[in-house]
Amino acid sequence: MDTAELVELGQQLRVDSVRASDAAGSGHPTSSMSAADLMAVLLAHHFRYDVDRPAHPGNDRFVLSKGHASPLLYSAFKAVGLVEDAELLTFRALGSALEGHPTPRRLPWVETATGSLGQGLPVGVGIALAGKRLDRVGYRVWVLCGDGELAEGSVWEAAEHAAYEHLDNLTAIVDVNRLGQRGPTRHGHDLDAYARRFQAFGWHTVEIDGHDVGAIDRALGEARSTAGQPTAILARTLKGKGVASVQDREGLHGKPLKDAAAAVAELGGRREARIRPQEPPAVRMLHAVPAGDSERPEFGLGEAIATRDAYGRALAALGSARGDIVALDGEVGDSTRAELFAKEHPDRYFECYIAEQQLVAAAVGLATRGWVPYAATFAAFLTRAHDFVRMASISGAGINLVGSHAGVAIGQDGPSQMGLEDLAMMRAVYGSTVLHPCDANQTARLVATMAGLDGIRYLRTSRGASPVIYGPDEEFPVGGSKVLRSSGHDRMTLVAAGVTVHEALAAADALEREGVRARVIDLYSVKPVDRTTLRRAAEETGCLITVEDHHEEGGLGDAVLDAFLDGRPVPRLVRLAVRTMPGSASPEEQLHAAGIDALSIAAAGRLLLAEA
Amino acid sequence: MDTAELVELGQQLRVDSVRASDAAGSGHPTSSMSAADLMAVLLAHHFRYDVDRPAHPGNDRFVLSKGHASPLLYSAFKAVGLVEDAELLTFRALGSALEGHPTPRRLPWVETATGSLGQGLPVGVGIALAGKRLDRVGYRVWVLCGDGELAEGSVWEAAEHAAYEHLDNLTAIVDVNRLGQRGPTRHGHDLDAYARRFQAFGWHTVEIDGHDVGAIDRALGEARSTAGQPTAILARTLKGKGVASVQDREGLHGKPLKDAAAAVAELGGRREARIRPQEPPAVRMLHAVPAGDSERPEFGLGEAIATRDAYGRALAALGSARGDIVALDGEVGDSTRAELFAKEHPDRYFECYIAEQQLVAAAVGLATRGWVPYAATFAAFLTRAHDFVRMASISGAGINLVGSHAGVAIGQDGPSQMGLEDLAMMRAVYGSTVLHPCDANQTARLVATMAGLDGIRYLRTSRGASPVIYGPDEEFPVGGSKVLRSSGHDRMTLVAAGVTVHEALAAADALEREGVRARVIDLYSVKPVDRTTLRRAAEETGCLITVEDHHEEGGLGDAVLDAFLDGRPVPRLVRLAVRTMPGSASPEEQLHAAGIDALSIAAAGRLLLAEA
Repeated sequence: MDTAELVELGQQLRVDSVRASDAAGSGHPTSSMSAADLMAVLLAHHFRYDVDRPAHPGNDRFVLSKGHASPLLYSAFKAVGLVEDAELLTFRALGSALEGHPTPRRLPWVETATGSLGQGLPVGVGIALAGKRLDRVGYRVWVLCGDGELAEGSVWEAAEHAAYEHLDNLTAIVDVNRLGQRGPTRHGHDLDAYARRFQAFGWHTVEIDGHDVGAIDRALGEARSTAGQPTAILARTLKGKGVASVQDREGLHGKPLKDAAAAVAELGGRREARIRPQEPPAVRMLHAVPAGDSERPEFGLGEAIATRDAYGRALAALGSARGDIVALDGEVGDSTRAELFAKEHPDRYFECYIAEQQLVAAAVGLATRGWVPYAATFAAFLTRAHDFVRMASISGAGINLVGSHAGVAIGQDGPSQMGLEDLAMMRAVYGSTVLHPCDANQTARLVATMAGLDGIRYLRTSRGASPVIYGPDEEFPVGGSKVLRSSGHDRMTLVAAGVTVHEALAAADALEREGVRARVIDLYSVKPVDRTTLRRAAEETGCLITVEDHHEEGGLGDAVLDAFLDGRPVPRLVRLAVRTMPGSASPEEQLHAAGIDALSIAAAGRLLLAEA
Repeated sequence: MDTAELVELGQQLRVDSVRASDAAGSGHPTSSMSAADLMAVLLAHHFRYDVDRPAHPGNDRFVLSKGHASPLLYSAFKAVGLVEDAELLTFRALGSALEGHPTPRRLPWVETATGSLGQGLPVGVGIALAGKRLDRVGYRVWVLCGDGELAEGSVWEAAEHAAYEHLDNLTAIVDVNRLGQRGPTRHGHDLDAYARRFQAFGWHTVEIDGHDVGAIDRALGEARSTAGQPTAILARTLKGKGVASVQDREGLHGKPLKDAAAAVAELGGRREARIRPQEPPAVRMLHAVPAGDSERPEFGLGEAIATRDAYGRALAALGSARGDIVALDGEVGDSTRAELFAKEHPDRYFECYIAEQQLVAAAVGLATRGWVPYAATFAAFLTRAHDFVRMASISGAGINLVGSHAGVAIGQDGPSQMGLEDLAMMRAVYGSTVLHPCDANQTARLVATMAGLDGIRYLRTSRGASPVIYGPDEEFPVGGSKVLRSSGHDRMTLVAAGVTVHEALAAADALEREGVRARVIDLYSVKPVDRTTLRRAAEETGCLITVEDHHEEGGLGDAVLDAFLDGRPVPRLVRLAVRTMPGSASPEEQLHAAGIDALSIAAAGRLLLAEA
């Protein structure tokens, strides 16, 4: 396209952004208009994409990090023929695939859900990592960022990660339109301020007028020809560009234009140009090829081993059996035991250093390209990535998250290192699976099972060693549980998971010595939960005691109640959980202080019977 | 002190760090040894502190951002006479105030809990903000950072914030010891790499040998004399400095030295020097002075107004009545309505831009200096700061968090902007209070009430307008609820909060037209929960239906069950909540699609009765 045609295409994208927002009665036309020329030149001259085959492995990938500029994205979809005009005007309506912020759920051309700012670039880094280190088929990743979102620390985690990995297949195009939601950004139109930051983090930078299509074209070309480092294009733009009543004005964020027809006229009227991006090269993907044979690790009954150790060994073995498994860790691989995978499969291991948001974002990015990521850190520190997990669930991303050092059982390190909120956080994520094994064989099985599930899969592991209680051939279906003690005379049921399973077993033994039989259920699948077994236990034993190394809200106890919350009779239930702020102490002292050790469980059982 | 004395003091801190960790059998002596000279010179020559009066308003403030180096901190406490040697050796033992990672709960000289990396500097920025903009009594804030934690994006949110606010009372001392937990950091001993980043963000930087006490002294002096910008001292150090068997070696993170006695000997043996920091100047604090009179805003019955609007108006009024109230927002003050406070009290308003971790950290820092912060953003985006909220609870910090745009009721913007996990997240925080008002007068009351509570207080507000149903004189105690419909013939109880209160009332009206009476409870206090009223309702009406604009896990439904989980009979309960992934749609369509509107509630009520 020549300059005039590019200018026309930019105007078309503006017009359609204004029209879509006007039809919706809401949306972000002004944020779309500032970036329209950037998008036009990218699409017309640099983006390689087979619009008929979004799954084409050679396709470039585009991420709209400033997700609120969805009208621009959908207008671009229309320009390349993916969306008809009538559908464009369903923007934000009930049932429309064109949601307020883009998600890949019904739009295969969207790589990842955006709308929480500062997440597109981190995920883009994950995609670029896949391209550079794994797929190696030459695709490029283009991320359109806002200027306001550069205040998010996650952007700088991503910047660091990208430069460190020399991701010259990644380009961040920053739409520096000077205005945030409520007013000017910190740096306004000071492109140098952003360039200095990106340069300091190891990026190549280009500063341009973001409405000069020639300059945009040259900058995108420069990004493509820059080797060894990612490129950030800092583009000076005007919010609402092209319509005088809104251009570069405050107070108009997220608002349709008052007079859309006049605005369209001012922009030169409707255009219906169709463009076709360049075709990607024919490529062949290799990662589905199994890497070789491997045995799942097996552990002997009674052997003392931590579930985190079992995680590392099982994942390393899974990596040998399946070539699509990748692992990531947040600089604690010696603790989570991800290092066992790293040693055997260094090519498929991604060290993310102490940057948990980037850890999860990179996993999401890798998953978009078909890899099966396992991302691990301490359970406590996964809270750092909560918003990324939330957005990953909106994306429908299939990722495995592993949180080690669960609960007070870690001992001396104290509360800052204890995962005591992670079950609540992970259970409340839409469509998540939450698994909490208590022994090594169970862990090994679940690590392999997770790979085949949909959505966010969470595995909670423990720091300390515990005895192996299951044989290596035992199976652990998701949504199941294991009844470890049972008789025809059970007077209560103890429900536990992870370290508390061993405490519950000891408590049941103690009660049995007093003539009281207690059923014990290992609820390794915290979500989904085994309703059938729990309901039967309630009917047969009359009361339940749940025991968890977690705060009382949102964890195992609440999961158990899920089995009864459809109007049916609920059993008497006592919930043992961590209700005080722990300090430092040995693991045994911690469990006792929290009232979740065998002694405390047995005492609760006696009290419950006495009250009955 | 002369050079030799400073060197001796550094060695003493090393010796005591080794001894404390040896006594504990765990801990991080090598991470302490790298920073010992930095700490020695700071304490002896630059830190102004009245050790007898930790609350002295003129005291400098020290934050150990690398919280795992707690042995160094406690050894420093000993050197200044705050801790005896016997207590030092209780490090990490049950009941000791000297926990694995420092917390202020029993140590008044600790400003904020650390141990989750990348949080000390952000909180330090909050303290420095208090010093610079509010207290104005000349204290300095010194933050000792690790090099590995600079990978956390939160550090760069803090860096941006500090430079933007010209916090020349803030110094970050970075202990660049090259080694993280599992191996080398990304940048090793490349001080320039870190200096470039801090400079790009607007900081003054100094690069030194962190074991040259003269160089340290000059650098700290340079920091004190630098005006207009914060200073980062990049100090090249050796992990485990001073003991050849561990110095600069990998694989020794978080491990006591194998032969502590030999190490102490190699370090020159025990020393028992006592030092006294310089006294701070006498100062007088002003912020307890009331700023003036103000009326709580009042709203007329039936008036349609959003709870977020009521938040803004109530907070502005509270700010007029109390001079210690401050407000922060994450660049969405026009949406959360924090802008109403900003307009009336610009001197006490802190714009944190799109950086939610820094938003919460700044609030924590301000709270350490006695200010009462209200930090607001969208409920969904508070998940970004989950780890900061968790650590704030460990600190025992008193902060108010306000999440607007709760639930599917926001409408067209779609799931990325919907707070659907926030109740689960906030309930699971230790010692938290969770409030979710449904009308403007209730909101105004709760905004004022929050200020007087302990710990983390969370207020959940809604985007859309809803009718005022309470008079301005109605009181809303924390832990209470309001019974809005009640009769002697109630056959069920509808429990709701926020927007679902209005839906429940409409459902009760519909059921009543069919001859079915339903009790309606407004459970505005989600945590703590009103056990008495809920239990009475269960006894009198037999069954409960909870209705929440939140995912089903960890929210209102689980809160209601809290009333029954002590072994007592649990009522039949049906939980209506958001169980699908929303798209874009109008607020009314969203509530209906989620099954939490009046129609759905009434239908659930009929079904429950039919099944009974």
